[in-house]
Parts: sequence; structure tokens; C-alpha cells
Amino acid sequence: MSHNTFGHLFRVTTWGESHGPALGCVVDGCPPGIRFTRSEIQHWLDLRKPGQSSFVTQRREDDQVKILSGVMPEADGETYVTTGTPISMLIENTDQRSKDYGEIARQYRPGHADYTYDVKYGIRDYRGGGRSSARETAARVAAGGLARKVVPGVTVRAALVQIGIHKINRANWDWAETTRNPFFAPDPEIVPVWEEYLSDIRKKGSSIGAVIEVVAEGVPAGIGAPIYAKLDQDIASNLMSINAVKGVEIGNGFAAAEITGEENADEMRIGADGKPVFLSNHAGGILGGISTGQPIVARFAVKPTSSILTERRSIDADMHEVMLRTKGRHDPCVGIRAVPVGEAMVACTIADHYLRDRGQTGRLD
Amino acid sequence: MSHNTFGHLFRVTTWGESHGPALGCVVDGCPPGIRFTRSEIQHWLDLRKPGQSSFVTQRREDDQVKILSGVMPEADGETYVTTGTPISMLIENTDQRSKDYGEIARQYRPGHADYTYDVKYGIRDYRGGGRSSARETAARVAAGGLARKVVPGVTVRAALVQIGIHKINRANWDWAETTRNPFFAPDPEIVPVWEEYLSDIRKKGSSIGAVIEVVAEGVPAGIGAPIYAKLDQDIASNLMSINAVKGVEIGNGFAAAEITGEENADEMRIGADGKPVFLSNHAGGILGGISTGQPIVARFAVKPTSSILTERRSIDADMHEVMLRTKGRHDPCVGIRAVPVGEAMVACTIADHYLRDRGQTGRLD
Amino acid sequence: MSHNTFGHLFRVTTWGESHGPALGCVVDGCPPGIRFTRSEIQHWLDLRKPGQSSFVTQRREDDQVKILSGVMPEADGETYVTTGTPISMLIENTDQRSKDYGEIARQYRPGHADYTYDVKYGIRDYRGGGRSSARETAARVAAGGLARKVVPGVTVRAALVQIGIHKINRANWDWAETTRNPFFAPDPEIVPVWEEYLSDIRKKGSSIGAVIEVVAEGVPAGIGAPIYAKLDQDIASNLMSINAVKGVEIGNGFAAAEITGEENADEMRIGADGKPVFLSNHAGGILGGISTGQPIVARFAVKPTSSILTERRSIDADMHEVMLRTKGRHDPCVGIRAVPVGEAMVACTIADHYLRDRGQTGRLD
Amino acid sequence: MSHNTFGHLFRVTTWGESHGPALGCVVDGCPPGIRFTRSEIQHWLDLRKPGQSSFVTQRREDDQVKILSGVMPEADGETYVTTGTPISMLIENTDQRSKDYGEIARQYRPGHADYTYDVKYGIRDYRGGGRSSARETAARVAAGGLARKVVPGVTVRAALVQIGIHKINRANWDWAETTRNPFFAPDPEIVPVWEEYLSDIRKKGSSIGAVIEVVAEGVPAGIGAPIYAKLDQDIASNLMSINAVKGVEIGNGFAAAEITGEENADEMRIGADGKPVFLSNHAGGILGGISTGQPIVARFAVKPTSSILTERRSIDADMHEVMLRTKGRHDPCVGIRAVPVGEAMVACTIADHYLRDRGQTGRLD
Repeated sequence: MSHNTFGHLFRVTTWGESHGPALGCVVDGCPPGIRFTRSEIQHWLDLRKPGQSSFVTQRREDDQVKILSGVMPEADGETYVTTGTPISMLIENTDQRSKDYGEIARQYRPGHADYTYDVKYGIRDYRGGGRSSARETAARVAAGGLARKVVPGVTVRAALVQIGIHKINRANWDWAETTRNPFFAPDPEIVPVWEEYLSDIRKKGSSIGAVIEVVAEGVPAGIGAPIYAKLDQDIASNLMSINAVKGVEIGNGFAAAEITGEENADEMRIGADGKPVFLSNHAGGILGGISTGQPIVARFAVKPTSSILTERRSIDADMHEVMLRTKGRHDPCVGIRAVPVGEAMVACTIADHYLRDRGQTGRLD
Repeated sequence: MSHNTFGHLFRVTTWGESHGPALGCVVDGCPPGIRFTRSEIQHWLDLRKPGQSSFVTQRREDDQVKILSGVMPEADGETYVTTGTPISMLIENTDQRSKDYGEIARQYRPGHADYTYDVKYGIRDYRGGGRSSARETAARVAAGGLARKVVPGVTVRAALVQIGIHKINRANWDWAETTRNPFFAPDPEIVPVWEEYLSDIRKKGSSIGAVIEVVAEGVPAGIGAPIYAKLDQDIASNLMSINAVKGVEIGNGFAAAEITGEENADEMRIGADGKPVFLSNHAGGILGGISTGQPIVARFAVKPTSSILTERRSIDADMHEVMLRTKGRHDPCVGIRAVPVGEAMVACTIADHYLRDRGQTGRLD
Repeated sequence: MSHNTFGHLFRVTTWGESHGPALGCVVDGCPPGIRFTRSEIQHWLDLRKPGQSSFVTQRREDDQVKILSGVMPEADGETYVTTGTPISMLIENTDQRSKDYGEIARQYRPGHADYTYDVKYGIRDYRGGGRSSARETAARVAAGGLARKVVPGVTVRAALVQIGIHKINRANWDWAETTRNPFFAPDPEIVPVWEEYLSDIRKKGSSIGAVIEVVAEGVPAGIGAPIYAKLDQDIASNLMSINAVKGVEIGNGFAAAEITGEENADEMRIGADGKPVFLSNHAGGILGGISTGQPIVARFAVKPTSSILTERRSIDADMHEVMLRTKGRHDPCVGIRAVPVGEAMVACTIADHYLRDRGQTGRLD
Repeated sequence: MSHNTFGHLFRVTTWGESHGPALGCVVDGCPPGIRFTRSEIQHWLDLRKPGQSSFVTQRREDDQVKILSGVMPEADGETYVTTGTPISMLIENTDQRSKDYGEIARQYRPGHADYTYDVKYGIRDYRGGGRSSARETAARVAAGGLARKVVPGVTVRAALVQIGIHKINRANWDWAETTRNPFFAPDPEIVPVWEEYLSDIRKKGSSIGAVIEVVAEGVPAGIGAPIYAKLDQDIASNLMSINAVKGVEIGNGFAAAEITGEENADEMRIGADGKPVFLSNHAGGILGGISTGQPIVARFAVKPTSSILTERRSIDADMHEVMLRTKGRHDPCVGIRAVPVGEAMVACTIADHYLRDRGQTGRLD
């Protein structure tokens, strides 16, 4: 089955391939009355778009988003207001280099979805990775731009916290730094380390994995569901849907396996304002699938780009053995451009749960 | 929103609280013509049920499953055949100790869903954890018993691979061992280590986290979906829905962040039978969201049980500060009983994707 | 595909066959904090249950509903409060006459689902109609009992308006009358006509069709959706899901085909209270898929029961031609017992849309 | 809630307003390997498009469809092959007359969705009806063009059978006639009657209702579901989602209320080929929610266009009473252009059920 929609009340459907005329999304269920400008959406797309540093793919795409439906323009000529009907957004593909795909059309690149698409569908769009291209994530980022506006007071930010074995020093964490380097690194001290390391990776035609941390602040307590649409479950699910992601964790994550109940407990007190206060956040802002009101903290691991210049053993569609090098303009660390995508997925998940809960309980207005 | 269903064509809805009269599930979309016996389902429930060793909760529940619909009995009086209509399974709660819940009814146990349920719903069933009790997972295990029969030739097994900081030695891995110790450990050498460690934890009234690995073999290549119902995404989602799970990974998982594209690539050759062979399985059996035909490998981390005897700081529903110890019969390592639950969730996910793909592509008959 | 759930936020899953041990439903997404008693639910079931007059099947079923989950009992021992978790309700089958089904097991009764189930599933539960039995509708009525409590101020009532060619006189419409005759007739003058007519039908072992009208009052304006979850669409869909229903209409319905735009327009004025007033209700309370605030009016046509004593030509599973009479205790006019079922389906649809809209727009609190 | 998707495995999401830059749809779940040309899709759009006779709106729209994703072009430059990924289709709006909407922006046209949109969303796109415009159905027709290719051997056709009180003579039924007159009338004798009648309606600035009959032939037996995704239920639901539809019936429909079980029964025999034969088709090709293999017959009633030149009483958004005439280029009988839309909705429903059933039962390959 093909299934290109996520979300329940705030529903996002994406479409498009790497080398088709365009890609886009339809955001259905967005509340009416939300004001936004095209440039606000474009801002997030610009963060994700290729060609911005030597550490990401040199493919050049303007990634200009068009808003095709679901909005009324205001008198200022800039602002749109959502009407509650589906919002269609479209991004044209402009830099599809025409070339001979004859070879790649039949050969299965190791670590790519070439082989599995062919087994499943009996056909695949091999041009630039087709549907499996990371270009699809542009549509998610556009949808995320709207999602950020759904829940009043929520901020979703992400940062790269690890490339290869090089992790940031969490003591240096400064969100402002993430806008000052090409890695979305919150730790200025790691930047030269990563620069040198990644330059080396890039020169070798190799690639490397990474870990991204997403933090959502201002999420009201009481959002989520206890059993099968747990907020953490849906965040994990949506992060796992990003290309190349191999692991997800919430709060303490895998480290929770190594500690005791005493160490893991987030104790509570009453704050000066008479409201509940948690004394720690091992849970990552979610207990029993429902938000606690603390920051929601999720991390996801991105594998190294499969497209590398080193020759690897593989096969082709005719069941012949081949040796394969993947030429082209690829990301040495695709984790970098996954940062705004992770933000978008978390923003969409929170918007969806907020609307669901307002529906069932009516408590969130 | 409450959302107690998972799956798309093979759909499981669970219901029930810890201290109500019963709990159960409705399995909708199960293919017709599948033969099974009540004792086959019971077998899996018995693996999960409490009171089987000193390392799990001493609550005594028979957990006898009743099959209420969706089947025709065969002449042997033992065998059922599915008819394609919804299969309702029910498990009575028998050991609900009557006691005074007055205190716990108003107090929020740290690490529990008490506080978040109250914020979300304005009410909660505090008796034994209510809906958030791990008893709910019995219904999943029953559903998993059916799911195992949906895809011909698939075997889903799981093992405990880590308790606290004590990890198994993977070189000792022997699936047969998992049935010979109370931990589902695949490494006999770790068993005495864990016994001693957990006995100590239990005596202290403390608890500890764990990591479980699930392996599905015999899954045909070509199952899954490329974007938002990725097979790995849905496995991750469904494992994250298990109580106390804080992290999930597929194949190399978080370790993929630390390696290069060369190291992570699963090369391919043609086997003696003329069919594709992968030379490694860093991907955990899934590429681009679709199965490769290799074993599917997933791991999930379970946090330490929040119910501990050590007094912790907390608050109550009247916004008073309290000191709280959680008495009762709890699991020192709830990860142990999560092993058959993890198997069930993976089995259900694979059954669902198999049916979806047969629907869209018609290739799997 | 088997698909035994309806609703999006207020979701009802039913299960069970005519001659299994029980049938029931799981209501997921019911808002928390709703108070109800078992006897309130039972009241609706009693209206639907068989054996209440000579004009319905003489099968005797107590149809006592059990509430298994999703509620907290109040101190009075009578009242339940919903907690927001799934509410499982179960009704035991008590009057499954044991008999030899050998013949019917292989023969296809004309007008029944016997043949189509066998083609689709390759197997069917032939005992009493199995899943296709009208007994399944008991579960819907139980769910409807809860749904009626979801939207403050909504009343859903239904009446039988036609049996065979005998229609009520709408000028006589009095809701109070529907409780005073075994037909749910709102017109006392039609009652003796129907009594005589149906007695004759019953004595002949024949059956006859009927039309039911459902009216929902107090539905706030602005509920529904403009395109594919139109309120009228979902009402039509859910009414069509009732056994034996062959047609559905809203407001003027098919009669709208015969009139002009002038005749069909519902003009508007401002009422004494300063609020909008419609001067007519040709639209049946719904414009563009969204409620107007007027009464919602839907009608559905029920075909004559297929089970008749007259011998008909048919075939069996071995592709032999047979002559078939359907013995047993059947409804001469199954439309009668469809009246409370129609109410339940409309109540559930409205509850669901109310919650959906509160989710997206937040306007309904 | 806004909900702009229908279908479960063959899923169609539409978007777009009457006077925005474009409208379109995303078809998700279409099987891979289906060959089609753009002109095949365009063929169906041309049947629906406005301006083709004096009996439909004179708005001029080319309605040229663009295929943006989900396909690979074949060497002939004409043919596309579906790849199993979502197919995005877009139709530009070209004839949006710029005009002053100042008046209509605040006034509620009787019979239109103006008032209900405003109540629900607090905002509406008043330009040309916005999302509630019948232009949205162009996207459905495009999707239907693909759906027709999913199930081998299925033909879906529709005809207009009634305008006002003027019904066709069914004895004259000839499908070929539907292509020879501007009404899709299958009875040549009704054509002059309707011409004269509709000319008169049009000159008066009035409008009139209609009834359309859809027939699907070649649908294999065994498609559908027994309880809540009944094939007839989903057909009824999807037909009811078409603008202005107020009633739907299957087979005998409302007439079934007036006849006995003997009259309504479709008897069966064994045909010369040894296969089951039905001797009549009162059921309209569906029993118990599942197809019998006979033609599927559905009818739906379309109300008269609400846009009429006669002045009607209404109100505006400021709660003032107004007198309102709807100027512009409208359909005197919107039922005419609903014919290809009805076909498309039935084709999509059948495609969806076919894929669902192949998923659950695996019987349809």
C-alpha cells in the first residue's frame, strides 16, 4: 500500500518525485482564521533547501512555495487567512539535470530503496531517487510552517547534536548558535570540529550519520492519548518517516534502560504561582502518552547517505552482479538538512494532537 | 482524543482497565480461513502473564482468553476458523484486590500517567492504574497470536538484551535459551548476572530499565510503504505505544549515526539459487520503508517501573505537596514482560502491511 | 475487507454474530465526564428488542447490556461517569435455538447475504445469519445511547411513516403517539390500517418494506463539513449501513428533483430574538454539508425481510438448483425494529461531527 | 472538521476553490503498472466541463488536466505508467471573472452554503462559491478516470433519467443515446421534451432538479463488506457527497418499501456455463453489502440549483434582512453536469473496495 498522508485532524498529504515537474502537499483540517504570509512558509523552506553550504548537496533548487487553495488574501497583498478548507502548496522542481539514467535505472544502489521499490511495485521512478528522494521533505517543511501557527504559544526548535562520533557539549547549548553555523549546531565549540571532519568526509566521497534533537516548548499539559495515539508514539512515528532515520527516542530514551526508578522519576512540587512544577524532565515532557507541560524532547538518528563515491558490490534488475559508485550531488551528512524537517514533523504532530484533544475533551480553548 | 485502535487493514482495538470486570480486544480485518485453537492464543498470554517468577509482579491473573466472535468452530471442538468478521477476545480480571484507593485517588505518582490523565480528562480510573496499567498489553498479545498466522512463513521472536548496564554477549545468542530462563535472555551467561542484579533491585523496592530486541524472519521482500506508512515507521510507532517505552531503533539504529556510508551499506550479490543476497543487514531488513527479505530487527528501551518503594516528592489533585511511596505488587523490571508484547506488536504490524500491500499491488499471493 | 468501525472521533466498533456467545461494541473517543446509568442504555435496547408484539420476530432475547470498561461508578451504585477511555458494552445471546443447520449451511437464501459472503470470504457463519443478522444492530443502539449524551440539547427521534403502500397522514403527526403503538407510528389513524395489513402479511408468511423518518432537533448550526464528510453524507452513509436499507434521503430528498429553485429555497429572516430564522426546511437542516440549526430530517427505506415462507428458486454451494423456504422466527416488517436503530445511527453521526468540529474550529464549547 | 479525502486504499484528496489559481486532487494508493494517457483523463473532464450547451453554465473553463506526479512517461510521449506513488493532478482556473463581490460577500444566498460556512468557520471564500462551488467536482472526475482502470473489466456509465416531473421511458433505454444529446439522456424521445422544458426554465432564470442513474457492469461478485463499509453504503456516501444531492437509492430503492418479500427476492439458478445466475436484480447488484456480480445500480436526486434570478428573502452577515437575486452564469439544471461526476464517484468506490478485498481475502487476482 502507498500511504502518503499523516495526521488525523491536521492531515498532511504529500506528493511528488525528485525529477517530476513539481512536488507539494495538501494540508487538510487546518483551523480557519490563521493568518500567515507566503514568506513565513518560505523561511522554513529556505533553511532546508540544498546548496547553502559545502556540507550539503550542491543541487540548486529555489524551492519557492506557491499557495494554491484554502486561503483568502488580505488587503495588504501579503497576508493570507486560512478558511478551514484544504491548503494546497506546490514547489516546482527547477534543477532536474537531464542526463542518461540508463545505468542507474536497472542497478540497485546499496542502502537505497531501489531494490525494495522494484520488488514491491514492479516499477520505480529512478530519476533522482523518485519518490524516495529527500526532496519530498520540502513538502513536510511547508506543512510544518502552517502547523506552527495552530497551537498558540508553541515553539518547536531543533539542533544537530552529533555527527559521527563527535557530539556537542550540552553545557554549551545556546539556541541562538543554531542560526550562526551551517550545521544547526547549538554548541559553537563543535563547529570547527565538524567543519574539518565533514570536509574530510566530503572529499573522500564518503558520508556520515548524525543525531538531531527536537524540543517543543509551550505545549500545554494534557495533549496526547493514553494507548495507541500516544503523543510520544506519534512523534516517534512521524520522525521515523523521515528518510534515513533509524532510531528515535523521547526524553532519556535508551539511557532510561540503564537507570533505576529513583533516578528516572520526575518529582513534582507546587511552584510560586500555585501551579505544578516538575523538578526534572527525564520523561521528555510526556507521561503515559500525554504531555506534562514541560518541554517535549525527542531525538532521532540519521544514517549516513547511501550515495557514496566508493565502489560497492550490488546487483541489477536482471540479476547480474555489478560494481556500483553513486555519482551526483549528494549530502555528505544528510542529517544536517533533516533538522528543519524534524521540527516540521514535531510541529505537525503537536498541532494534530491539540485539535484531536480539543475535539474529545473541549478543554483547550 | 482517545484512540484505541491500531492498524489499517488488520485493525486491533483494545479496551479495558486494570480493575474493571474484564479487558479485551476486537481484531477486525483478519483474513478468513485461518485455523487456530484457543490454546495457541493462550500460549502467548501465558508468557506475558504476571506471577511467573520473583522478577515480575506477584499479582495473580489467570488471563484466560475467551473467543466471542468472528470464528466457526470445527468438528474437533478445539479448532476455530476465522470467517473474516471481527474477532472479539475477552480476558476477565480476577485478582483485583479490593482496597482503599482513597490516597492514591488524589495523589500523582511520579513517572505515572496520573497527573496527565487528570489534566487531559478531568477524571481518571485510579484503581490499579486504570487504562494505563500494563494489563492492557494482554489484549495486544492475544491479537498478536492471530497476527502470527496471517503471513505464511513469518516467525516473530524477541529477547531481552539489556537490564540496567548489563548487556548480553551477542556471540552467545541462542534463541532456544529464551525459553529456559525467566528473562527471555538469549545468552545463558547473562542469566546469573541478571538474577543477582534484579534480586537486589527487588529487595530495595527499586526498579530498573531494559532493552528488548525483536526479530521477524520470513517476511517477504516488498512489504511496506515509502513515505508515511513505512514498515519501520509503523513498527517503531507500535513499539512506542507499549507502556514505558522511551526509544526504538531499527537495524543499526542510533549506532548508524557514528558510521560512514561505506560501513553502513548492505552490499548485494546473487546467491547460488539465482536470487539476491544481502551480505550484511545494517538496515535491519528495511530499505526506504519496505522490507528487503532479510530479518527485520528492532530494539526498544523500557524505562524502569515508576512504582517504587522509595519515597518521592509529588503533589496531589488539590495542589498540595506530598511525599509518596508506591506500595503494591510491581515489576522490578517491567521490560521482562514487555518481551512477548513487543513480539505481538511487530507481528500485528507485519500482518497489517502484508494485507495492505496485497491490496494495492496484488503481488503477495 | 472487513470494516466494523464507524465514526472519526466518536468511533464505534461492533462485533458478534447471531448465534455466538455474545455481541457488543467498543465506543472509543467518548468525551470524559458524561454521566449515565445502565438502565438509560437499556431503555433504547428494550425498544429494539425482539418479541415485543406479533409484528416482530418472536425470538426472545433479554438483550441486557453490560458495561465493561471506560467508566467509573459513582457512589449511588447506579451512575457511571465516562473517563475518556474506550467503553466496551456486551450483550449475551441467550435464545440461540440449537437446531440442525445442515440444510441452510449450504443453501443460498434469495435476498440474503449467504451467497455474497461465501464468494467473498469462502466461509460464513450460517447460524442465524451470523454477522449479517439484524442482531448486530443491538450494539449500535447501545452506542447510540451514549451518543445521545454527547451534544448538549440534542434530541433524536424517529417514526415509521410508511409500510407497503400505506403512508401516514403527516397532518396527524404527534411524537407522543410513537410510544403508544407497536409500530412507532406518529399518526394514530394509521395504526389500525397497519395492524390489519401486517397481520395479513404475517399470516401469509410474507413480508413487506417500510420507510422510517429520523428527526434530530437542537443540533447547533455549523456542524458538518463541506466536501467529503458532509453531515448529510455521513448520515446517509450510516443509515445505509443498517441491514436491508435500500435508500436514504435528506429534507426534500427525491422530491427535490421535481421542483424549481424558487420552490426549494429556504428563505431567511431575522427573528424577534435578533437571530436568523429559516422560513422553511426543504434542505432538511443541512446546507453545503453543514447544519443550519433547523431540525435535521432524514428518511430511509427498508426492503421487505428476505426470510419468507413462500418457496423460491435458488442454488446451493455445490452449484445445484434448489427450492427454498426460510423457516424460523422472522420479522414480517423489519422496518419496525429499524426505528430505534435509525435514531442511534443519526445520534452517533451527530456526536462524531460535533467533536470533529470542536476539534478543528474550537467554536462549539 | 474539514475532511477532503475519501477512500481507504484508493484514496482521493481534493483541494481548490472556484476562484483560486487552480484546483486538483491527489490519488493515493493507485496500483502500480496502470497505463493511461492524459487525453483519457481529459475525455471525462470534457464531459463535465461547463459551456457545452445552452442548458449548462456559460462559464468557460478549459479544464485541462496536468499530471504532476506518480507516473513514468513511456517512450511514445503519450502514455504514463503509474508507479504506486501518489498521483497529483491539477486543473487551472482560467475564467475567474474579476468583479465586485462586495455584496455577495456579506449576504447569504438561500439554499447555498454561505450561511453555514460562516457559522462553522467564521470566514468563507465567497468568490464564486469558493470551496462549495461545483468546480470541485472536476477533481473527482479526474480521479475517476484513473479509478476506471483499476478493476479489470469494469464499466461505469450514468444517464439522466428525470428532470423535474419529466421521466424517461425506460423501455427506450439505449446507452448509445447518452452521447448524442446534451442531457446524457438514454431515451431519445425525452430529449425534445427536456429541451423545451429546460429552455423555459432557463429563460425564467429559474432552475429545476433531476435524477441520475449510475450502472456499473463487470464488477466481480464478492466485493464489499458486511457491516460498516458496505459497498452500497460507500456508494451512497460518495454520491451524497456530490453538491446538491439530496437522496440516493440502490436497486429498487424507495420502491422496495412498497413491495413484498416475494416480489423483492432475486431468485437464482445455474446458468448454461455452470455458474450462478440471478433471475432479477431488485437488489441493484449488492446483497449484505457485497456485490453479487450483477450490474450495480444506483440513483441519486439533485436539487434545483439554488442560484436563481427570482428575488428571495434572506439576511446578511450583519443580521440585516435583505432581498437577494443571484446573478451570474449558472446551470438551470445542475443535474446534467452531475452525470459524469456520479460515474466518477462510483468508479472510485468500486476501485477502493476491490483493493480492500484483495488485501483482506486475496481472492481477486
